[in-house]
Amino acid sequence: MRFCRVAVDGRPRWGRVDGDAVHLLSGSPLEGDPAPSGQALALETVEFLPPVVPGVFYAVGLNYRRHAEHALSTGYAGAVPDRPEVGYRANNALIGHGAPIVKPVDVSGRFEAEGEVVAVIGRPLRRATYEEAREAVFGWTVGNDVSAREWQHRDRTFWRSKNSDTFKPMGPWIETDVDPLVQTTTVRVNGEERTSCPTGDMIFDPYEYIVETTRYITMHPGDVLWMGADSLCQLEPGDTVDIDISGIGVLSNPVRSESDAPPERKPRQPWN
Amino acid sequence: MRFCRVAVDGRPRWGRVDGDAVHLLSGSPLEGDPAPSGQALALETVEFLPPVVPGVFYAVGLNYRRHAEHALSTGYAGAVPDRPEVGYRANNALIGHGAPIVKPVDVSGRFEAEGEVVAVIGRPLRRATYEEAREAVFGWTVGNDVSAREWQHRDRTFWRSKNSDTFKPMGPWIETDVDPLVQTTTVRVNGEERTSCPTGDMIFDPYEYIVETTRYITMHPGDVLWMGADSLCQLEPGDTVDIDISGIGVLSNPVRSESDAPPERKPRQPWN
Repeated sequence: MRFCRVAVDGRPRWGRVDGDAVHLLSGSPLEGDPAPSGQALALETVEFLPPVVPGVFYAVGLNYRRHAEHALSTGYAGAVPDRPEVGYRANNALIGHGAPIVKPVDVSGRFEAEGEVVAVIGRPLRRATYEEAREAVFGWTVGNDVSAREWQHRDRTFWRSKNSDTFKPMGPWIETDVDPLVQTTTVRVNGEERTSCPTGDMIFDPYEYIVETTRYITMHPGDVLWMGADSLCQLEPGDTVDIDISGIGVLSNPVRSESDAPPERKPRQPWN
Repeated sequence: MRFCRVAVDGRPRWGRVDGDAVHLLSGSPLEGDPAPSGQALALETVEFLPPVVPGVFYAVGLNYRRHAEHALSTGYAGAVPDRPEVGYRANNALIGHGAPIVKPVDVSGRFEAEGEVVAVIGRPLRRATYEEAREAVFGWTVGNDVSAREWQHRDRTFWRSKNSDTFKPMGPWIETDVDPLVQTTTVRVNGEERTSCPTGDMIFDPYEYIVETTRYITMHPGDVLWMGADSLCQLEPGDTVDIDISGIGVLSNPVRSESDAPPERKPRQPWN
């Protein structure tokens, strides 16, 4: 099944995608088995929100050999990871399918998309076995780990290089019935294929990450685990970037420059 | 005023601390001005929860000159920070006042407390001025950035060194009427003073961090900003560690070894 979150009258609602329709639900499928509300919307008209707002936003760096070796060859990594060690991203950066990625006016250098498989945790987990980790994933969605590369290399942390507002598109929905390790991730810009990679080329798979992480850390329903990218793809304002993962869905977002509109001082709406 | 969150019949409730009593509230003071529910509990009997569960958990590293220079002298930092750049911690690690810090069995080397001033954001903020940043802080609490130092130096990220379950005590409450920059942070172990430092010895103050962060990032009500520690203090199982910040409160937690009890595979309760 495919579950999504959409904005209805300015409020977030859970829905189930069925063909061309989104059937609104009475609650969250992460907290039970919500009944349909009886209301349905046309899929092409809905405003997608990030499909979940995590309690903890886990993200994996350098998890595809090609990306890790590129980072190694350019001096930005010391070694290909030999253990599954998670990092973190921040919720303020999340946007849904269709919402604009805004490039800040003072970004210089490469501004890049990274297409990623995302696991959505479905039950509390501590000291999970590999099999328990498999059973605890509620479903899979698509993430775009947008990165401002000069900031990434110059700053002490990833605070603005990877966590500026709008830098973390996620969606369009959570697919519960798919094996994420036998799919293909394709990144397109303005409809043109730029990169393509088997999802399964990971150094450590999602379940290995969950097993290692939960040795010390309780993972909770709604937590997300972004699985890293195989390759990078330059973005310019005016582009539209699609992250297409077969069997899961296509996450598509336009790219805008912050300078296209006077900088707003009004805070973004809360995402949930 | 002092606001706290406590467990009542296994559920989180907001309260207002008044002398020896906690007056339960009908809702969150971060979302309005909740009415008292009429129910009061004795302060000494309540089970404290972390006073807030943030949407984003910001944390500042190397923000006291003595700590930064120590890191520099031991080779663990390249330079004293010349810009306010935030990092992140993870919600799974949060515990309240009084709850045990659990030292994992495979931690070796130094296992240390870091006492920190914590800002709790009260309103949405983007491109804040210094004055707006001052006005947007709802109140102040106390954090203990417990760190397993060998893991911190050996791992690629801070995932287990700073984010293992129970490594982030926060509380006991949020104090809304205090100037956090003219206080004293004292760390005691088993009642004995180990370190003491003026809170105002920060390299960058909380408002400077908020101004810089919100150039790119929307901060939301309930987000927390941990302001860094002046010094470190070794902990052993059996100890009780107090972080005492004058004008705010005393955050006290016992330290246990994971080996004191058979490792539990049952996940910790959700914290909210």
